[in-house]
Amino acid sequence: MLATVLNAPKDIRLEQVPDPGLHRPTDALVRVTAACVCGSDLWPYRGINEVSEPTVIGHEFVGVVEEVGSEVRSLRPGDFVVAPFKYSDNTCVHCRVGMQTSCVRGGFWGGPDRDGIMVDGGQGEYVRAPLADGTLVSTREVPDKDQVPSLLALSDVMGTGWHAAVSAGVREGDTVVVVGDGAVGLCGVLAAARMGAERIVTMSRHESRQKVARAFGATDVVEVRGDGAVAAVRELTEGVGADAVLECVGTNESMQTAIAVARPGATVGYVGVPHEVDYPVRDMFARNVGVAGGVAPARQYLPQLRDEVLAGAINPGLVFDLEVPLTEVAEAYAAMDERRAIKSLVRP
Amino acid sequence: MLATVLNAPKDIRLEQVPDPGLHRPTDALVRVTAACVCGSDLWPYRGINEVSEPTVIGHEFVGVVEEVGSEVRSLRPGDFVVAPFKYSDNTCVHCRVGMQTSCVRGGFWGGPDRDGIMVDGGQGEYVRAPLADGTLVSTREVPDKDQVPSLLALSDVMGTGWHAAVSAGVREGDTVVVVGDGAVGLCGVLAAARMGAERIVTMSRHESRQKVARAFGATDVVEVRGDGAVAAVRELTEGVGADAVLECVGTNESMQTAIAVARPGATVGYVGVPHEVDYPVRDMFARNVGVAGGVAPARQYLPQLRDEVLAGAINPGLVFDLEVPLTEVAEAYAAMDERRAIKSLVRP
Repeated sequence: MLATVLNAPKDIRLEQVPDPGLHRPTDALVRVTAACVCGSDLWPYRGINEVSEPTVIGHEFVGVVEEVGSEVRSLRPGDFVVAPFKYSDNTCVHCRVGMQTSCVRGGFWGGPDRDGIMVDGGQGEYVRAPLADGTLVSTREVPDKDQVPSLLALSDVMGTGWHAAVSAGVREGDTVVVVGDGAVGLCGVLAAARMGAERIVTMSRHESRQKVARAFGATDVVEVRGDGAVAAVRELTEGVGADAVLECVGTNESMQTAIAVARPGATVGYVGVPHEVDYPVRDMFARNVGVAGGVAPARQYLPQLRDEVLAGAINPGLVFDLEVPLTEVAEAYAAMDERRAIKSLVRP
Repeated sequence: MLATVLNAPKDIRLEQVPDPGLHRPTDALVRVTAACVCGSDLWPYRGINEVSEPTVIGHEFVGVVEEVGSEVRSLRPGDFVVAPFKYSDNTCVHCRVGMQTSCVRGGFWGGPDRDGIMVDGGQGEYVRAPLADGTLVSTREVPDKDQVPSLLALSDVMGTGWHAAVSAGVREGDTVVVVGDGAVGLCGVLAAARMGAERIVTMSRHESRQKVARAFGATDVVEVRGDGAVAAVRELTEGVGADAVLECVGTNESMQTAIAVARPGATVGYVGVPHEVDYPVRDMFARNVGVAGGVAPARQYLPQLRDEVLAGAINPGLVFDLEVPLTEVAEAYAAMDERRAIKSLVRP
């Protein structure tokens, strides 16, 4: 089959790889109908994460079940499924409390499974899904074509934005600040709006992203960064600060901003992978500002968010502003790398 | 009047200071009937915090209202009152959400008020209480003598232990680890038990403290520290970790232990003033372990905890294992400094 392989920084190609089959009776084989490129895929693409050998890539996909192992109970061939960005059994001690990203049997797409057998990446024609009952969430019938981007967004970015809002404890009537205008930050805006936030401040300098943020429910835009951003939020909130803050970048500057704009007693829900973040420990203590979040258990939120997408209540697929056939996956990466696209969708 | 003055490290004396009076119509004058020494009083006592000039000290006291300003509505002479360790108006934008320690008009005992007039310390015969309606919590009638230590504990240590448990999100049936066996950690055990925790692990090497912890509801004691403590909790929880963790010390080692024993998705509620704490940022992100807490808004919890003490439901006064007359306040400090006492109570 054809799958996306990263050979070296900036050298990404659609290549022939071995067809996947079922290895364990809990596996399912999925024919991918749509996949996408993640901001985190850009790290090895840019060479920030080392690429020592050619590797299959991609961890966000939807598709149709082709075949299931003998122990798979909840799925059957023909089912349309959404895959979260990690696979998990959904039954272990951590999964049961909603922390599927810490599943004792789980793992990442594009890496070896417990038997040392490679699991496919998401940006290809087919994927062997381990622990299929626990991992894949079905809509049963194949959804309308225009719902597919929104379902695909549940693989990662919408579940991650939702996790930021859950972790920050967003409540009805809150004033929420979202730091970061990437696809995750935009989904954070949508999540906060869906949870009833009254005022949602997005920090964004890009007109196209501001537009999506407004469509998702942002009420205010702050274009400045650093101290200027903190001053702007202080002014917007009459000196009080935000009831909840979503940190969706992961740099030290964005975390400092997120903590500084939080009101006393507020929580920063963070999902940006932290890079050299140095917490202002004494300030957090003095003002009772907490941090919560991490690798988002997208699987926990998938059934609820699937229903909301199918009901037309949320449309996170708006974050996709580029769609190309899988054969042009290199352009999907280049457009995101060069910031010509917020998020790229590829169709096999 | 007589009040405790710290003149220099280890030089603590009961001295004559000016009698306090009412300065603002919102003040009340309180005759102190019991006060105590806080772990944080030991920092300047030990010279860890600089002592540049003689200073009145103490921030935990109970007493009887002697006189109230013309605008004080909720108190009258003769009322028995508990003072939280910071004064606050209890009406500002931060107080209204329970963050009285961030009150826009609040301040510390033993420091200057908004008018630059010194506020008395708690370890003396009388205290002028600013913002009396917001600050002081009354029991109306003078309580039984044996309830006084437990009411006094609400000034700080019990409210602080309670805040750790609230911040950690302790729920019924939880397994909770409490790091720290000082008065605050012991009160954290009591708070967790009161919130319905099923298993409470105290980390303590001192028999006298273990005894209080057991009386407060601790089910398990871990005597080792560092990696050994982490391994012990792993074993006690079958590898899962704790549902909630209370960090009641503030050193880097204790915070690392607290985070390491937290299960994925758990929160470390911390109230130990952080000293050179360096958060394990990537580990916290990977396992979704959050931190919440800070300077405890003891005032928020006072009415509820007062009622629980008066009803006999909790007895945090057990943390006092030394009681001396105010004239022997130097011994009250020395006993805590030399770890001969968990917490010292002084009676004017």
